Amino acid sequence: MKPTTLKEIAEALGISITTVSKALKDYSDVSPKTKKAVTDLAQKLNYSPNTFAVNLRTKESKTIGLIIPEVVHHFFSSVINGIIAEAEKNGYLVIILQSNESLELEKKQVELLMNKRVDGIIMSLSNESNDDNHIKEILKREIPFVQFDKISKLIPSSKVIINDQKAAMAAVQHLIDQGCKKIVHIRGPVNPQNAIDRFIGYKKALEKNKIPFDSKLVYTCESVTFQEGIDFAKQILEEHPDVDGIFAITDLVAVGVLSYFNDNKIKVPQQVAVIGFSNWFMSQVLTPKLSTVDQPSHLMGVEAFNLLLEEMLCHKEGTPFTPRTIELETNTIIRESSMRIR
Amino acid sequence: MKPTTLKEIAEALGISITTVSKALKDYSDVSPKTKKAVTDLAQKLNYSPNTFAVNLRTKESKTIGLIIPEVVHHFFSSVINGIIAEAEKNGYLVIILQSNESLELEKKQVELLMNKRVDGIIMSLSNESNDDNHIKEILKREIPFVQFDKISKLIPSSKVIINDQKAAMAAVQHLIDQGCKKIVHIRGPVNPQNAIDRFIGYKKALEKNKIPFDSKLVYTCESVTFQEGIDFAKQILEEHPDVDGIFAITDLVAVGVLSYFNDNKIKVPQQVAVIGFSNWFMSQVLTPKLSTVDQPSHLMGVEAFNLLLEEMLCHKEGTPFTPRTIELETNTIIRESSMRIR
Repeated sequence: MKPTTLKEIAEALGISITTVSKALKDYSDVSPKTKKAVTDLAQKLNYSPNTFAVNLRTKESKTIGLIIPEVVHHFFSSVINGIIAEAEKNGYLVIILQSNESLELEKKQVELLMNKRVDGIIMSLSNESNDDNHIKEILKREIPFVQFDKISKLIPSSKVIINDQKAAMAAVQHLIDQGCKKIVHIRGPVNPQNAIDRFIGYKKALEKNKIPFDSKLVYTCESVTFQEGIDFAKQILEEHPDVDGIFAITDLVAVGVLSYFNDNKIKVPQQVAVIGFSNWFMSQVLTPKLSTVDQPSHLMGVEAFNLLLEEMLCHKEGTPFTPRTIELETNTIIRESSMRIR
Repeated sequence: MKPTTLKEIAEALGISITTVSKALKDYSDVSPKTKKAVTDLAQKLNYSPNTFAVNLRTKESKTIGLIIPEVVHHFFSSVINGIIAEAEKNGYLVIILQSNESLELEKKQVELLMNKRVDGIIMSLSNESNDDNHIKEILKREIPFVQFDKISKLIPSSKVIINDQKAAMAAVQHLIDQGCKKIVHIRGPVNPQNAIDRFIGYKKALEKNKIPFDSKLVYTCESVTFQEGIDFAKQILEEHPDVDGIFAITDLVAVGVLSYFNDNKIKVPQQVAVIGFSNWFMSQVLTPKLSTVDQPSHLMGVEAFNLLLEEMLCHKEGTPFTPRTIELETNTIIRESSMRIR
């Protein structure tokens, strides 16, 4: 059964489309008799308001779009939950799109969200994103927009971030405090801002403690996976058998490292101390329990939505809105995998 | 800047809306000069095709909707990736909505997808779904529809499933073969079909081996979480100190059980053998490595999309389509957590 239109109902009842529309919206200037005839027929014919029509009248769809690189991910998943929870409280539905770290897909998805007339967009950029014309388009069309986690510094939108440099510095400082002298960093890909910042934090910690930076102690993830953690752990031991500390870009990679070490009887933390980033719930489940940086992901989602809501309300009322950046606090979680000194 | 319409471009150039539309679609019966004038102006004014208009002409949006209970989930995430991979190959974008195991939210999301005129819908029902009027609505409107994993048997749509009873039976049979005599089942909530079927499989295995069924050995998850695994493990040991085997509804719960046992020095598998379900990648990372049932989740996503694609193509061409059910094979993965007999 094809979707019924306002026109079909109007023709069937011999009245105008405007009257049908008003009747469905329960306007007072339509007679009760007409309203009943319209609503009965609409019900019978399964009439469902066409999105476009609704948008024209109210200019609101009560949906927002969320584009993230990867849905299946211990960090992003938690952010998603934060966004959905706040959205639901405020009567919004969330359309989730996964860019799979592909700039091309990300561009198509931005286009889709704009075509679908969402009220606002929240995004964390893909690892490939180095061309932000599609993002500029969102701002050009005055669609409320918030970035989080992997952001473009050049885009003047609201943002929710952490201080990746400071967080990474603290993590590496902890390894140094635990007596590590030869510390490897398994970093994120070269492009994303947060990977760059965590790398800078690693270097700053070394510098502060007068440990010379050695680029051969830096390994770069392509996809930031569990498997890369395993592969790099193997490679690191072969190339630097005297490594005594590893700082990984994220817990998933650190867990891969631990997995390899466990299978090959490498004692953690006694031989090599390991620290990750993000505080995945699984990090406490492994043996040894993984040290990490707590990144308030759920809160990040909550704050991102609330910033967007503010902007969407201003947009609706036509009042000016000044984009804001919220920087959330992180802290180092010390567990078995890096506690060498008791 | 408000979105530009075809009408505005037409008025600006003094031509008809039809000509503008044809020019944008590069029809051969529009002069190159007109095409250029139209596309230049469209570019300048940021013209973007209104979804509604596109739908009227082609009746295709090249987007599908996916509603799942939980995005952040080792099983669902893998299915999502399978769906997205196939969708992308075929030029479709996937709108993901998370129902959070809430029937109310699921209903709103079905409504949203229908209003947004997606070409097809793929769904796994929430744990609460016991009222399927919203699902019947999808079929009533002849929107292509595929169910997977948690399905409604009564809805005559295409489905991609596994044989949960057979899979669970094999898992419990394995524990029995390993000498377990007092086997606990941590089951899923009472409502979802797959939880019911795994429970039936557990009972059938006991029956086959003449082990009496004891309902006190069955613990029921409300939310199927890691924490419930921990809490039940504690409760199970208190209430049945001589338990020697545990079959958990899913790996996430089994991992919670292992976490509690590890922290409390309960020897697995020697004191208690443990087996889960779904073959989460983390199951191989723990100590001891977790035995499980391999559920081909990525393939499930791939098959679900392809079934949907078939139906969408038939729908587009007006040819009849007969819904099909694809049942995928599972197999028991035996690891350290249940290998008592060598």
